[in-house]
Amino acid sequence: MTDTRDPLVIFTPSGKRGHFPVGTPVLTAARQLGVDLDSVCGGRGICSKCQISPGYGEFPKHGVTVAADALSDWNAVEERYKSKRGMIDGRRLGCQARVMGDVVIDVPPESQVHKQVVRKAATAREIIMDPATRLYYVEVAEPDMHEPSGDLERLSAALKSQWQIDGIEADLTVLKKLQPALRKGGWAVTVALTRGNHDALPRLIDLWSGYDEGGIYGLAIDLGSTTIAAHLCDLRDGRVLASAGVMNPQIRFGEDLMSRVSYAMMNPGGDAEMTAAVRTALNGLAQTIATEGGIDPVRIVETVFVCNPVMHHLLLGIDPVELGQAPFALATSSAMSLWAADLGLNTLNPNARVYVLPLIAGHVGADCAAVALSEEPQKAEDMVLIVDVGTNAELLCGNRDRVLACSSPTGPAFEGAQISSGQRAAPGAIERIEIDPATKEPRFKVIGCDLWSTEPGFAEATAGTGITGICGSGIIEAVAEMRIAGILDPSGLIGSAEQIGSPRLRADGRTHSYVIHDGSASGGPVITVTQNDIRAIQLAKSALYAGARLLMDELHIDKVDRVVLAGAFGAHISPKHAMVLGMIPDVPLEKVISAGNAAGTGARIALCNVGARRQIEQVVREIHKVETAIEPRFQEHFVAANAIPHATAPFPELSKIVTLPDVSYNTAGSEGGRRRRRG
Amino acid sequence: MTDTRDPLVIFTPSGKRGHFPVGTPVLTAARQLGVDLDSVCGGRGICSKCQISPGYGEFPKHGVTVAADALSDWNAVEERYKSKRGMIDGRRLGCQARVMGDVVIDVPPESQVHKQVVRKAATAREIIMDPATRLYYVEVAEPDMHEPSGDLERLSAALKSQWQIDGIEADLTVLKKLQPALRKGGWAVTVALTRGNHDALPRLIDLWSGYDEGGIYGLAIDLGSTTIAAHLCDLRDGRVLASAGVMNPQIRFGEDLMSRVSYAMMNPGGDAEMTAAVRTALNGLAQTIATEGGIDPVRIVETVFVCNPVMHHLLLGIDPVELGQAPFALATSSAMSLWAADLGLNTLNPNARVYVLPLIAGHVGADCAAVALSEEPQKAEDMVLIVDVGTNAELLCGNRDRVLACSSPTGPAFEGAQISSGQRAAPGAIERIEIDPATKEPRFKVIGCDLWSTEPGFAEATAGTGITGICGSGIIEAVAEMRIAGILDPSGLIGSAEQIGSPRLRADGRTHSYVIHDGSASGGPVITVTQNDIRAIQLAKSALYAGARLLMDELHIDKVDRVVLAGAFGAHISPKHAMVLGMIPDVPLEKVISAGNAAGTGARIALCNVGARRQIEQVVREIHKVETAIEPRFQEHFVAANAIPHATAPFPELSKIVTLPDVSYNTAGSEGGRRRRRG
Repeated sequence: MTDTRDPLVIFTPSGKRGHFPVGTPVLTAARQLGVDLDSVCGGRGICSKCQISPGYGEFPKHGVTVAADALSDWNAVEERYKSKRGMIDGRRLGCQARVMGDVVIDVPPESQVHKQVVRKAATAREIIMDPATRLYYVEVAEPDMHEPSGDLERLSAALKSQWQIDGIEADLTVLKKLQPALRKGGWAVTVALTRGNHDALPRLIDLWSGYDEGGIYGLAIDLGSTTIAAHLCDLRDGRVLASAGVMNPQIRFGEDLMSRVSYAMMNPGGDAEMTAAVRTALNGLAQTIATEGGIDPVRIVETVFVCNPVMHHLLLGIDPVELGQAPFALATSSAMSLWAADLGLNTLNPNARVYVLPLIAGHVGADCAAVALSEEPQKAEDMVLIVDVGTNAELLCGNRDRVLACSSPTGPAFEGAQISSGQRAAPGAIERIEIDPATKEPRFKVIGCDLWSTEPGFAEATAGTGITGICGSGIIEAVAEMRIAGILDPSGLIGSAEQIGSPRLRADGRTHSYVIHDGSASGGPVITVTQNDIRAIQLAKSALYAGARLLMDELHIDKVDRVVLAGAFGAHISPKHAMVLGMIPDVPLEKVISAGNAAGTGARIALCNVGARRQIEQVVREIHKVETAIEPRFQEHFVAANAIPHATAPFPELSKIVTLPDVSYNTAGSEGGRRRRRG
Repeated sequence: MTDTRDPLVIFTPSGKRGHFPVGTPVLTAARQLGVDLDSVCGGRGICSKCQISPGYGEFPKHGVTVAADALSDWNAVEERYKSKRGMIDGRRLGCQARVMGDVVIDVPPESQVHKQVVRKAATAREIIMDPATRLYYVEVAEPDMHEPSGDLERLSAALKSQWQIDGIEADLTVLKKLQPALRKGGWAVTVALTRGNHDALPRLIDLWSGYDEGGIYGLAIDLGSTTIAAHLCDLRDGRVLASAGVMNPQIRFGEDLMSRVSYAMMNPGGDAEMTAAVRTALNGLAQTIATEGGIDPVRIVETVFVCNPVMHHLLLGIDPVELGQAPFALATSSAMSLWAADLGLNTLNPNARVYVLPLIAGHVGADCAAVALSEEPQKAEDMVLIVDVGTNAELLCGNRDRVLACSSPTGPAFEGAQISSGQRAAPGAIERIEIDPATKEPRFKVIGCDLWSTEPGFAEATAGTGITGICGSGIIEAVAEMRIAGILDPSGLIGSAEQIGSPRLRADGRTHSYVIHDGSASGGPVITVTQNDIRAIQLAKSALYAGARLLMDELHIDKVDRVVLAGAFGAHISPKHAMVLGMIPDVPLEKVISAGNAAGTGARIALCNVGARRQIEQVVREIHKVETAIEPRFQEHFVAANAIPHATAPFPELSKIVTLPDVSYNTAGSEGGRRRRRG
């Protein structure tokens, strides 16, 4: 049909081009060429989503010269829009500007439907906007007694003719609103349609009279055992309006996962109590985050959850008892598409859709799937180990050939729990520490203060919060530094004041403790690292390392090319100290990368891009799961990893550090026995 | 693959045949040939649904001789089943009996999946069982830590391998029950799966441990303005376990449809009040009918509704206000597939599916669609007029070429409302009447007594109920008989005692009344037919006739071949009297057929056969709707139909009856003016 005598229209950045008759609206040309140019109002000059930037003059690259009159004149619709809302000079509305001659038209990023969301971390994958729920403005035929049909059927016909959407389903609560909205809006409505599962029809989940600008929003929720963190995103452009977190109120039923499963086992109705608690918290969180983002929570029409299997079952109202015992059978491992009402999330839009990422195995959750979605080990050219440490550690190892997953029972020590001076990461907590190998004196930093403890002004700066304890990253650095400074022997035993030659070593029953900070003079705590703390960290790091080694064994490799640390823990931990401690396999330090909250990022990706959901469902089906509990080699690796090793040869900076006297102290009690019970 | 040296297996009544290797179970052969042989347990000898009757000896028709050893020996599974549950002699279990030689196998009706449900009315269509929800017994693999997968995924895999069902969705409430049910049932469950809408996956709506025999049931509900009637059906065989009805509690908000719409218009929240009232009544009805049928109401997994548009909107919680004014716009006219929870039907299974038949137009409801489903005018070879009289009359007219529909505002006079001595059809109501043309003396029958009022013993027989009023069929007969007896002139005016020569005519203001029964001596009512009663019936019958004539005009016909009277009204009305009155167009009396509760039958069909739902949706799309309110010819027909005509020539029995003196009485008041206001 193309007539080369017609004007040539070239779109950038796509490079798509075609000939169109004089008078063709730019939006029409873009649609016919499949150019990614947004429109909510369908070309009626209302929404202004189709803004374009025409280029004029010579374009040798494209072989065209664009005359000043290549597009129709600036018109009244554009003038009204610009005077009312403002528009960048040089921009035109694609639905108003018509092709008059050869023209080069740039589609700015904000006018693209599938816009990319800018991510801070350069290494992370981009999010392409393609949410399950979208807004459509439609003009609906008025009822006609001669051709009786329902308002919904006429809306459906309008969606077909104006948006090529063939068939919809409607929720009763929306159907209820349809008649008044159509009449109030002069037979025009803005509808939110969500794509159906499988081959089901798109579903009408809300609507507003006329052309509505209130927008639609989504929540990406990382439901952790300890913390529930949420991002509120604009579903039109992926922008994060607000982020908020609350403690998981299930903590009162048990700090860690297994104690919650035990609570459910031992208390009839205990699972329902925990389900109710977390749902109440989620409703509160949705309200908080909506207020913070300045929106009405009924505008939240989509929610994505990532969580570990126990949190998953408790969220869905499924008794997690099977997850507390072999064979750790999940009720379901598939991704779930639900409605907010199914989960009692009544703060949100009554028809809000809920998507829960798939679980990988009984111990490897949707949070790990979300990490895979964000970090994409299945696409890696190099061999990557991804470590997501929460109360349990979840590990992914592999490359584009094959990806394995497992979880490792690290326990909560890495989060500062079950540590004598341990606390959560909060102002006043020691988060970084260095110990002088000569004097054995420490210096440290606390959360909320940028100064080291030895710098002037530190005491004043921390007077407000005090120095209250030591958090996860702090205890890891403390143990590693104690080893580097020779305070610990390779088996992890703390030397005495005499052996080490420092008054900071204090006797503590049959073992010794190292004093980091003594605040007792001013009524504050004495912050120490005890022998039990060392043992807790040794158990945790042995479990983590053993998990990684187990996956490496399965892959028949003895080293990885890259280690990605995910989670809040990963963002704060010092790679050097983690490696001294032997938490992770040896790699060059610059190959240890923090991915930040990768699970939360994965949740955001699934929220903003419906195709990513199908993709991660497929990836999860292909990930091979390794169950640590039944692998004898896990025990072997676990036992072997208990020592705090020398650094290996390829890393000069570590080699230097660990050229230590190989001191050995008397053991107190049978640590081996305790370890086996824990393992 | 067929080897003709293998034994030949012939199934009757289907006639399907094929060669199968020695040792093939009969059920397997049946499945491979597509023979309709039921099985819930999948061939495990548990359910006994696959019973067959082998035939032995000579079968010249089929050209085979069946030896006594054509099937494998009676086995222990069959013996156990027969001794425990009983089995007709000669029957075998299709899953146990194996083919050993040529054999002829009859599949008895009760072993067919798509069994026919026996209907009483010979003219009515058969119901072929093919419900949306079915039971499947499955044996599920146990969880394996080496290949972790959810219980739901293993159930899904089992459904695929054992039942060729590829992919399911699950409700959360069922998912919650899955783990304990599987473990309790030794890794076997009976699941209820309902087919999805469009191309959506089948949905798991309930499940029970092991092989469950509790069954699944459905409700077919005819939700009328006055009465809610329900049938409880076994979804396995279509058997009606119980039928029950309750008054529609919305009556307290308005007797007829328009007064309920007015209530909604004039009272904020009035529609919600009416919605709540009907839903409460439905829950009560479900409980009652389940008790009566001896089942647990949670076994009710499907419900089908038929109702007029106003009842439809109020059931769904949609404000019916638009239905009270032109252009009578429906919120939706499409069939609806919902969940019981959407309608607050919490007596039923929490995942029970609800199907609401499509509406035809703003005044022509799903009840009319159900009549079309039951009576199938779109398949008729002859020209049929179907009249469903409730508070409004809905009419269908056409044949296999074309079907038209309209509703006609008859008002409630045909139900005995707005009649001076009128009452609902209940014991004590006069339902039949004859008036002697010579003496003008009446004789009548009342509901609850088989005797005519002139027969001995009538007074004693009716002493209990008394003679309390006159119901819809009674008033129609009374008016027709008054015309036949010359008490009415063709314009509908009642003569005086002097004019008629009977003391039963009494002055009543400026008009006269006819006394049918004077019970005042014993403190009972005087039952009369007043001039206003005659006018009310004339208006109603004119509206009904005008509707029929309007459809006939559109079809360019001046007579129909057959008239079907649907509804309780249709079942009780005398065709002769209806024709004397001019309610329906003239046809031979034997061509006036009562279809009973055709709307209720349509609901049952849609409940038992999911294909019928798609069929009626298609039929409704093709029915042409005629809106009486905007057709000037409706007014013309209405005015012209006001008289009570002579019978026309082709009907000798009526011609004889209506050879009447063409008396004419003075009119009292301007009836024409009143009629126009009503019309």
